[in-house]
Amino acid sequence: MQNMMQSQSSMAWKGFHASIAAPQHQNIVKYTKVERNGNMEMLRNGYLFTEIFKKQMEHMEKYPDAKIISLGIGDTTPPMPRLVTTAMQEYSNALSTIEGYRGYGLEQGNMPLRKAIAGNIYKNMGFNESEVFISDGAQGDIARIQLMFGSNISIAVQDPTFQAYVDTSMIMGQTRKQAVEYMRCSPEKSFFPELAGVPRTDVIFFCSPNNPTGHAASRRQLEDLVSFATNNGSIIVYDTAYSFFISDDSPKSIFEIPGSKQVAIEISSFSKFAGFTGVRLGWTVIPKELRYSNGYQVIKDFDRIMCTCFNGASSIAQAGGLACLTPEGLQGIRGVMDVYKENARSLVETFSSIGLKVYGGVNSPYAWVHFPGCKSWDVFNEILEKTHVLTIPGCEFGPSGEGFIRVSSFGKRDQILEACKRLKRLFA
Amino acid sequence: MQNMMQSQSSMAWKGFHASIAAPQHQNIVKYTKVERNGNMEMLRNGYLFTEIFKKQMEHMEKYPDAKIISLGIGDTTPPMPRLVTTAMQEYSNALSTIEGYRGYGLEQGNMPLRKAIAGNIYKNMGFNESEVFISDGAQGDIARIQLMFGSNISIAVQDPTFQAYVDTSMIMGQTRKQAVEYMRCSPEKSFFPELAGVPRTDVIFFCSPNNPTGHAASRRQLEDLVSFATNNGSIIVYDTAYSFFISDDSPKSIFEIPGSKQVAIEISSFSKFAGFTGVRLGWTVIPKELRYSNGYQVIKDFDRIMCTCFNGASSIAQAGGLACLTPEGLQGIRGVMDVYKENARSLVETFSSIGLKVYGGVNSPYAWVHFPGCKSWDVFNEILEKTHVLTIPGCEFGPSGEGFIRVSSFGKRDQILEACKRLKRLFA
Repeated sequence: MQNMMQSQSSMAWKGFHASIAAPQHQNIVKYTKVERNGNMEMLRNGYLFTEIFKKQMEHMEKYPDAKIISLGIGDTTPPMPRLVTTAMQEYSNALSTIEGYRGYGLEQGNMPLRKAIAGNIYKNMGFNESEVFISDGAQGDIARIQLMFGSNISIAVQDPTFQAYVDTSMIMGQTRKQAVEYMRCSPEKSFFPELAGVPRTDVIFFCSPNNPTGHAASRRQLEDLVSFATNNGSIIVYDTAYSFFISDDSPKSIFEIPGSKQVAIEISSFSKFAGFTGVRLGWTVIPKELRYSNGYQVIKDFDRIMCTCFNGASSIAQAGGLACLTPEGLQGIRGVMDVYKENARSLVETFSSIGLKVYGGVNSPYAWVHFPGCKSWDVFNEILEKTHVLTIPGCEFGPSGEGFIRVSSFGKRDQILEACKRLKRLFA
Repeated sequence: MQNMMQSQSSMAWKGFHASIAAPQHQNIVKYTKVERNGNMEMLRNGYLFTEIFKKQMEHMEKYPDAKIISLGIGDTTPPMPRLVTTAMQEYSNALSTIEGYRGYGLEQGNMPLRKAIAGNIYKNMGFNESEVFISDGAQGDIARIQLMFGSNISIAVQDPTFQAYVDTSMIMGQTRKQAVEYMRCSPEKSFFPELAGVPRTDVIFFCSPNNPTGHAASRRQLEDLVSFATNNGSIIVYDTAYSFFISDDSPKSIFEIPGSKQVAIEISSFSKFAGFTGVRLGWTVIPKELRYSNGYQVIKDFDRIMCTCFNGASSIAQAGGLACLTPEGLQGIRGVMDVYKENARSLVETFSSIGLKVYGGVNSPYAWVHFPGCKSWDVFNEILEKTHVLTIPGCEFGPSGEGFIRVSSFGKRDQILEACKRLKRLFA
């Protein structure tokens, strides 16, 4: 969920960087005696999207007249349902009145929204609203969950997957004790790891529908995952940021699987589902049944983290989120979702017609395209050079992503169709 | 900035707690094998405001007809200037249009707001907008700064002060290596530590105007602080969440002090200044001159943290923040500030008329009242019992707070006047 635009300021640092450490300057530049955090040093320099943005800039310089189309960043584009924005407008307006003004809310989120999530999204799963924590989005919650677990745990991730799990693991210093376990998820194995060969870790991050492959884990796969975690005494951190795209009968929540409450946390977001990428709203569910080895409830530590390191999601965003979960709101969102799905179908059809294997795009806004024998960055470069279309090189999501690109269906309809036309022409 | 209301859910845990660890249940309750983070164990159980809330509940049960007035939590009450809420309404409305919809913004904040902060609040201090990071409030930034520094640093804090600095230090595991250094700030020493006796630490958290004492550090004091940090090679994390309350010529920013850019970070917030406690908006300034011992720029690591562990403040809140910094917005905010200041004057006058020493209340929304020879909790209990007025026991902000209570001027005018009347009657 990093933004391509972040790179604007990252690039501005070049200037600062150039002024470091030239020996003749060391007398004027005063350093503190505070040691840089070694965990930060371990992170790769630069973000994926900084690199993509640099490529885009270079490309625009080379072809100033080119009409670039981005199938890169997973950013939402269709407008939000009016019902949702009206709720936020009304909430904002009330803040300027004596009766309507509200200050601090609960750090864990406003009760009506927590109730609506427990009652709508986790219907009949027996959750109390106190097990739902409202946040400013999944990315913040991933970091807060890592902060809660601390530096002594070991983690496993899917390969390929969203890299924030690995980056936050490094920032916490977890990787100093034990390397991240990459669980290979290949198309040949239905994008599911061969669990028999995966060593035990304390925590398993699992994203479904997966970013970038677009694969939604089946019920059978998730039963295997829960049973694996149960046998190992591991905790699954299940990321369902894309679950609203699921069209078939794949589970939309890990909590559809019996026994999961004793081994899983679920993270989710309004970002992709309701276009809240800029408004910022998400949630995390921690079942009261989930306990550490000493019997202490995980939910109690997460509550402490939310109160100490966070102070509640924006009250206006929460008013919008509540409107999303009304029957009218959900209907409006389905309309938005249909646009993305149509886009995804066009992209899948395009690459299939070229004779390439395409995965995802059905239960996910992302399609995952295989170019056997090719390097992801070469494919990325060739498509950009010849069609002015931006994609994301699959190798950046983990070693098993090599040879793939990720294309996103978040985009305006006409732009997507134009991109499809150019791609067909390129590979014709 | 924790909320009294958080305790509602904390109290709900009682039920969960009761079901743990009864030996006969251990066969049914399945524990994971994940060890609880030892740092979390070190935190005190329960928050200050949970305790206060419990007291309030007990009091309400005992006196169901009592009209309780809270001078406790620092929550804002007057409505926001209409200009600000209109900006947020317009931004929300635009999200439902094709032209107006915006998705992800920069993780570091939208450029116009960063520019407005650099240009208005740090006018003539030579900051570039890239040195300003927009956040969802100071509390989140304190945690992210700690995450950036990691677990190997040592910290010092004022005594008394806001406890989030200490709590996040414990969560990061810093206190396993070295205890937090409490720098005593007594009224006799103008609420400033005797630095000659303070051992070097990597980081010094300094809150001015201070929560809870209400004291704004003088220029001379801050020059001493910057010089102390410079000599020790320490980094000051300067929290100015209440700087807009400064009425005299005390510096509003650490960056008014020469040499500070090489030793300081500044955190601030729209919460108290513009009533954004629920809307959530703050910022942190990291000068590009600030460097670790190896010469690496601190700003680069903070940027990485903001992009990896945060995904930008709500775009709607940012639109409101931008409106606050227009000339009309600032005028509207001054009107709100005047209400608090009048309240503070009434509170200070009340306690003074009783013959008590009162500090703060001039450059701060908080007054800090000394009851020599008394215990803070006894004073708290007596005032609550006899006047139905809630305060905050000073001892909860550090050992030097014993014998004091903190009273907040955030409240409706008529309620504050009623509280003053009751207090005068009690101590007459």
